[in-house]
Amino acid sequence: MTVTLILGAGMMGTALAFHLARAGHEVRLVGTHLDREIVASMKASGLHPKLGLVAPPGIRPYFDDELASAWPGTDQCALGVSSAGVDWACAALAPHVRAGLPLFMITKGLRLEGGALVALPDAVRRLLPEPARAGIHPAAVAGPCIAGELARGVPTCVVLAGRDADANARIAAAIARPGYHVFSTTDVAGAETCAALKNAYAMGIAFALGLHEKAGGAPTGSLMMHNLESATMAQAVLEMRAIVAALGGRPDTASGLAGVGDLDVTTNGGRTGRFGRLLGLGLSPAEAVAKMEGATLECLEILAVMRAAFGAGAVPGLTLAALPLLAHMIEVALDGAPVALPLGRFFDEQLAR
Amino acid sequence: MTVTLILGAGMMGTALAFHLARAGHEVRLVGTHLDREIVASMKASGLHPKLGLVAPPGIRPYFDDELASAWPGTDQCALGVSSAGVDWACAALAPHVRAGLPLFMITKGLRLEGGALVALPDAVRRLLPEPARAGIHPAAVAGPCIAGELARGVPTCVVLAGRDADANARIAAAIARPGYHVFSTTDVAGAETCAALKNAYAMGIAFALGLHEKAGGAPTGSLMMHNLESATMAQAVLEMRAIVAALGGRPDTASGLAGVGDLDVTTNGGRTGRFGRLLGLGLSPAEAVAKMEGATLECLEILAVMRAAFGAGAVPGLTLAALPLLAHMIEVALDGAPVALPLGRFFDEQLAR
Repeated sequence: MTVTLILGAGMMGTALAFHLARAGHEVRLVGTHLDREIVASMKASGLHPKLGLVAPPGIRPYFDDELASAWPGTDQCALGVSSAGVDWACAALAPHVRAGLPLFMITKGLRLEGGALVALPDAVRRLLPEPARAGIHPAAVAGPCIAGELARGVPTCVVLAGRDADANARIAAAIARPGYHVFSTTDVAGAETCAALKNAYAMGIAFALGLHEKAGGAPTGSLMMHNLESATMAQAVLEMRAIVAALGGRPDTASGLAGVGDLDVTTNGGRTGRFGRLLGLGLSPAEAVAKMEGATLECLEILAVMRAAFGAGAVPGLTLAALPLLAHMIEVALDGAPVALPLGRFFDEQLAR
Repeated sequence: MTVTLILGAGMMGTALAFHLARAGHEVRLVGTHLDREIVASMKASGLHPKLGLVAPPGIRPYFDDELASAWPGTDQCALGVSSAGVDWACAALAPHVRAGLPLFMITKGLRLEGGALVALPDAVRRLLPEPARAGIHPAAVAGPCIAGELARGVPTCVVLAGRDADANARIAAAIARPGYHVFSTTDVAGAETCAALKNAYAMGIAFALGLHEKAGGAPTGSLMMHNLESATMAQAVLEMRAIVAALGGRPDTASGLAGVGDLDVTTNGGRTGRFGRLLGLGLSPAEAVAKMEGATLECLEILAVMRAAFGAGAVPGLTLAALPLLAHMIEVALDGAPVALPLGRFFDEQLAR
């Protein structure tokens, strides 16, 4: 039986734990210091309070300070922390990791390090100690996967993006099961760029919902603004393709699971869309953030990272002026400009990759 | 003032009429023999019974047998018939068209002619009489545009696809207005392939809705199957890119307005999605068609065309076996096979273009 240790007991880390337990793994789910209430609940009754579901058999929950006792016998390790928790997680894992350890992560995105955008699997590898680091090839799970759906066993397709095809294949074989399909790629730059950007673009697509309601439309039913939403989605995909290409990834990654797929699910499924709708309704960023009641807004993080990256020349051959939707989202969400989607500047032939 | 004659007074032809009237055109809206009740209503009160809206000033409705009296003074002409009505429409226009006439069409798609797939603008040109034909360059309007939203003036972006860039530019300038953005392309093969295929793929994406409800899920709310829908959408885009490339179009057209954009709006907005949901629920094609109460199902037409096209070798370098979603949709909708999305065969690296 494969023993998988997951570090991070939030929604997605725990949904992964549910999935792997059903796939027959022994799962050791180790919370961070932020997950203490969750772990206490799971120890007491198996209930994950945020998912609202009771864990299936095969999952053992641990507090953050129990990591050392949870580790022995671990066959593979998954990072389930948020991107802000990566440094802590790597430091916590440092005493335990060994060369050849299969390491995958639901944490994903881009970081700006020394004037360059770095994909999180690459950043994680650098944070691990020598000499084990050389034999570890972290792979990130991307693609359309809402945590609650994974926990309930809804059929799901994901991309596993890591630089080493053999390591990818071993991890993919270990975590796949009927109804959970894993497609591997070595296009780490492409998958991680999409994983990061989709949060921002889902917000921009949702501007249309807010504009529509502001104009007196009902939130559902026949009087929608699908034309505007769908045009914005198409522009988002073209901009993601261009950014992926500029960062050395394969543009087609943006037209597949990690791009179109994750963008679609994020637009339909989550808090990012609600936040974009509030901005479209005319709320200021501060007012909209307040209404979100403390929800993590990855869209704001990635917009700040992208603005800094363009300022540092970290996106070769591309300027913000060539990406009118991204530029507008930055103006709206970071600077408080009113929402006014620049449709006339969309679909520039020069952008097509 | 530009005088635009629109042939076809269905939902989309009339929505275009509303739009052009607001843009300052004098619009002569000529129904087909199927539109007699609509034209009678519009002559009496301005009300289009299917759109449920009263025409703005500037639109003159005509019965089909009034075309000759409606024509004099026409500056440009639009085909607003369904794809099944193209032969009739071209025959009706034959006595009137002149070389250099700007001709555009909301009718779109692919026809199988003599073993080859032909884009409708090319088919229309061949149906027009010599010598005028040589100086007419029909252009098709594609992209995410629900008729009811266009009629209400919702912000909309469309693609105008014609083989002559100058003719495209003249038509685009004549029909654009603030809130209706027209992006021109000479990629007729790409835009028309997407316009046709999106109906089929929207049906396939909606399979997930039916599967979900069949499994006991509620039609909206938290217990959705967005992961499955979004994975299917990503596969749809990859397959459309591959088919576009095989038919000589630009794959990027499938990642833009005509592809991703129109696919998204069709999935969210219309009868094709309802039909796919019924199949996902387990109804036979005949039962599902019966429930649609006579709605035109372009998805069935294009699936039949594509099956015949692959049988005739009309899609160079590509087989149905390489397109698992399209192949499955054909089996389900044309042959009555049960819905079972072949996720394990999705996202083949070989398919990426």
